[in-house]
Amino acid sequence: MFQTFDSASSPEQGPPRLAALRRAMAAAGYDAYLVPRADAHMGEYVAPCDARLQWLTGFSGSAGFCAVTPDVAGVFIDGRYRVQVRGEVDPDAFTAVHWPETTLADWLIGQLPDGGVVGFDPWLHSIDELRKIREKLDPAGITLRPGANLIDPLWDDRPARPAAPIRVQPDDLAGETHASKRARLADPQAHVVLTLPDSICWLLNIRGGDIPRNPVVQAFAVLGPDSAVQLFTEAPADAAVLAHFGDVVTRHPYHGLRDYLDALKAPIRLDPKSAPESLRLTISQDALREAPDPCILPKARKSTAEIAGARAAHLRDGAAMVRFLTWLDAEAPKGRLTEIGVVKALEGFRRDTNALRDISFETICGAGPHGAIVHYRVSETSNQSVKPGELLLVDSGGQYLEGTTDITRTVIVGKPTGEHRACYTRVLQGLVAISRARFPAGVAGCHLDALARFPLWTAGMDYDHGTGHGVGAYLSVHEGPAGLSRRSDTPLEAGMILSNEPGYYREGAFGIRIENLIVVQDAPALPGADDRKMLAFDTLTHVPFDRRLIDVSLLSTAEQDWIDRYHAATLSLIGPRVDGAVRDWLTAACAPL
Amino acid sequence: MFQTFDSASSPEQGPPRLAALRRAMAAAGYDAYLVPRADAHMGEYVAPCDARLQWLTGFSGSAGFCAVTPDVAGVFIDGRYRVQVRGEVDPDAFTAVHWPETTLADWLIGQLPDGGVVGFDPWLHSIDELRKIREKLDPAGITLRPGANLIDPLWDDRPARPAAPIRVQPDDLAGETHASKRARLADPQAHVVLTLPDSICWLLNIRGGDIPRNPVVQAFAVLGPDSAVQLFTEAPADAAVLAHFGDVVTRHPYHGLRDYLDALKAPIRLDPKSAPESLRLTISQDALREAPDPCILPKARKSTAEIAGARAAHLRDGAAMVRFLTWLDAEAPKGRLTEIGVVKALEGFRRDTNALRDISFETICGAGPHGAIVHYRVSETSNQSVKPGELLLVDSGGQYLEGTTDITRTVIVGKPTGEHRACYTRVLQGLVAISRARFPAGVAGCHLDALARFPLWTAGMDYDHGTGHGVGAYLSVHEGPAGLSRRSDTPLEAGMILSNEPGYYREGAFGIRIENLIVVQDAPALPGADDRKMLAFDTLTHVPFDRRLIDVSLLSTAEQDWIDRYHAATLSLIGPRVDGAVRDWLTAACAPL
Repeated sequence: MFQTFDSASSPEQGPPRLAALRRAMAAAGYDAYLVPRADAHMGEYVAPCDARLQWLTGFSGSAGFCAVTPDVAGVFIDGRYRVQVRGEVDPDAFTAVHWPETTLADWLIGQLPDGGVVGFDPWLHSIDELRKIREKLDPAGITLRPGANLIDPLWDDRPARPAAPIRVQPDDLAGETHASKRARLADPQAHVVLTLPDSICWLLNIRGGDIPRNPVVQAFAVLGPDSAVQLFTEAPADAAVLAHFGDVVTRHPYHGLRDYLDALKAPIRLDPKSAPESLRLTISQDALREAPDPCILPKARKSTAEIAGARAAHLRDGAAMVRFLTWLDAEAPKGRLTEIGVVKALEGFRRDTNALRDISFETICGAGPHGAIVHYRVSETSNQSVKPGELLLVDSGGQYLEGTTDITRTVIVGKPTGEHRACYTRVLQGLVAISRARFPAGVAGCHLDALARFPLWTAGMDYDHGTGHGVGAYLSVHEGPAGLSRRSDTPLEAGMILSNEPGYYREGAFGIRIENLIVVQDAPALPGADDRKMLAFDTLTHVPFDRRLIDVSLLSTAEQDWIDRYHAATLSLIGPRVDGAVRDWLTAACAPL
Repeated sequence: MFQTFDSASSPEQGPPRLAALRRAMAAAGYDAYLVPRADAHMGEYVAPCDARLQWLTGFSGSAGFCAVTPDVAGVFIDGRYRVQVRGEVDPDAFTAVHWPETTLADWLIGQLPDGGVVGFDPWLHSIDELRKIREKLDPAGITLRPGANLIDPLWDDRPARPAAPIRVQPDDLAGETHASKRARLADPQAHVVLTLPDSICWLLNIRGGDIPRNPVVQAFAVLGPDSAVQLFTEAPADAAVLAHFGDVVTRHPYHGLRDYLDALKAPIRLDPKSAPESLRLTISQDALREAPDPCILPKARKSTAEIAGARAAHLRDGAAMVRFLTWLDAEAPKGRLTEIGVVKALEGFRRDTNALRDISFETICGAGPHGAIVHYRVSETSNQSVKPGELLLVDSGGQYLEGTTDITRTVIVGKPTGEHRACYTRVLQGLVAISRARFPAGVAGCHLDALARFPLWTAGMDYDHGTGHGVGAYLSVHEGPAGLSRRSDTPLEAGMILSNEPGYYREGAFGIRIENLIVVQDAPALPGADDRKMLAFDTLTHVPFDRRLIDVSLLSTAEQDWIDRYHAATLSLIGPRVDGAVRDWLTAACAPL
């Protein structure tokens, strides 16, 4: 099993560790100290050796940070984690702070005296993040002071830095050689420092195993003006990798970056959004150039080969999901399943493909009220049985060599209520609206997000998360820069893969989310259409929706047509990959509404 | 008649005037000179004395500017005016430049030598506008040099500055006294300079007649920290106005602003988006504060009294429109109407209300192919007959004491084609989607714009203008800051009045636009809705759509319901205001689909 179900947190260890940190702070002369959930690469997942926030506080969520003063230790968490944090940290030692409603800067200003000093490890914060904080702290007379990490010396059994072997991502899956990528992205005027592991892996057509769920190599890289690459990593490279690198990619120890940059007497380019402050402090002002990571947009525009790979991965994953749903439909009504049992079974169906490299994130499996916790991760403590009459929300995905999947299906165990059906149908109408959208070039996700919400809005309902995020090609399941949300202002371009996942949550009762992955393409020709370039989405995910939850009377003809065509396509694409009872289940699930 | 139909332009006068300007440029030492269509108040309309662009070039459109060098005179115009400009300017003397595809800065860089000097009148350009240009010209070694206006001395019969009398806008229509507005908007730290006539008129509860279509006083004002106002204008004030002003509003000559600011030894606040560069050059760096015009948002949030006024104005205007449409339906099929005849008749029906103060903009009345010219203004030269089988697009509005109206109806003369009906229905579906929308606080027009386009987009169609603009309360028919377009990022708030006007245009064939005004309100309670604050639109305009153009088979049940309810409300609101044949026509037009 990739997924584990331990409660992860150890609240009782928080107070002594906090006391030790406060002694270290006093010795260093800090009035406050920052402990983020971050490594130097700003990803969503961190290696165990970088899980300092969890070590200190017990909090295991995927976002948050702690700010410690001699008197208070604030654990800053967003709306997703307000319930979870209560069970994971000692409330006598730590105070939960609602973030971003309360910003770190405002909190520090409230806690610290004029002249206060805030210590931090400059490898764990981006340049832009610190700029924003500094802008508010400066007028209040509070100073941010970089220094050596204070947690690491206290952490006795700290795990080693990961060093999984590098593997070559074949050119026929990447669709472009690293030579071609390096040549088109090198900056003739500067050495480009890359700090994002997925940028580096994409650029060099490599993958790794350093970070759970994300098949990346933990590394820094410098792309020279001559398009040669210096790669800083502990990950071992075998002969195949060395041959792939040739003499244009030179390996260095992970910690060698700063010395390498010191020795360069030339302009150095950094992306302040993601590069750690430590690098800014290292590079002379004269040499420093700030500009976006050049890999981000090209990586988001998937190649023809990557899109073909994504389609293949989705068919394989779709067949596993259909096997899972057939099993679930047979077993769940008996009332003996638990959330953990469901997660284990699903991972089993994906493993049976013999192609699963990892799950793409911790499966979210919430029965009844747990479905309303948007990022619910089931543990032995929280595990509930799946009861007849309840909705079950399952959000999961797989990492395959050819691509990354991410799918959510919500199903009813037994008989749905009218309310279940009304809410599910409105969520589905939102998904269908995005799926059907054609739109002119220049449109960004912020312009389309409302299409997914309109059917809910007109009923006075909504959901408190974005409608979709970018997805990598056998890389991170959450990949920038494009998305479908009110904040996504990156124009959509052909080749971008996004999730389409509207939802509806009723606290204490149920949660509904339905998610497909979609890819932006040039819109197919249409009779009577204007002579203007338009884009459209093509759906990658093919797994039936739960027809028991669809209230056909709410659907327009166009919506019903789309669902029927989707189900017909699903039957024709997935049908040949399953047989027996599964095939029968699929055929019934894909019948016209 | 308010509207005129003269061709306005005199292309043959362009060349000698251009030659005179070039002599003045040479004398002043300029390598280029800028002639914008602007006065010092940055409005959409200018007084005749400020129509310098038209005087020089002949171009009469509502947006554009000319940049003159010794060799070339570029007339910069956007997509709306590419056809019109051809008939209005002498092509041997002036070159049309597609703007904003070609920016002024890029064009100047292409035309001028390094070290080139560009002359301009600093009263006619905003601070921000010049900053953007300067940012690009500086690296190219080109200098912007402010100076006295070069056109004015050449313009022999230049009209006098307008000086229509000031009138009091009664408190019961404004809904708030000027004392209350001044008190809540005064800045204790600075003297706030107001340069936008509609901000000043709104703040002081006055109206004027200086600018066609906009019932404003051409003025500057300074709102002091003590909330007293200095008003700089040539507009006469009678005893009622003087009593309204009391001793807190002091009048000064229009040209006295600069001297007044010179004498102030205190911080002065300007909005760089709208304040002319001339003021920035006048005020010392130490005293200058830049901040948004404080009236803009409060003015956009209409008071309860202003919304009640808008409803009253729309019922009166709606009855006039219904009389007009009844007449049109009877007369147009005979084939003897012309576009000008239609405009005159419509203005007549509005005048018959005995309450029309002005039209709110030049009526756009386009038959057949003219309907595809988005901002078509009919003239004696362009005037066409209205032929059976054609669509007729009529976009018009009135200025009434209680409010400003803006309505577009597209009707078929005789029998529509299937294509007319399909396109009209999709446009109407867009209008209905906006009308039905409920949305949470924080949503801006850029998030909703796609709702209006979705029915067109799915058919490969679109329109090249925003879906809606803000509308003033007996003020400008185009009022910021909120709107419904991809660029409108101002969150919508209760009280904002917007237009809802999707369209579809097929060049050389027809144009369709349907427009209602809507007001943002707290969403009415809804059974089963979430406990979250939501907003919704209420429609102010009540005039039937052309049912002959509606293809019911394309509508969802919810869309058809909305249209039927809209027509029922229209009959019940407008019905009592009309009788006889008009009442019969209205009753038939408002029957359920």
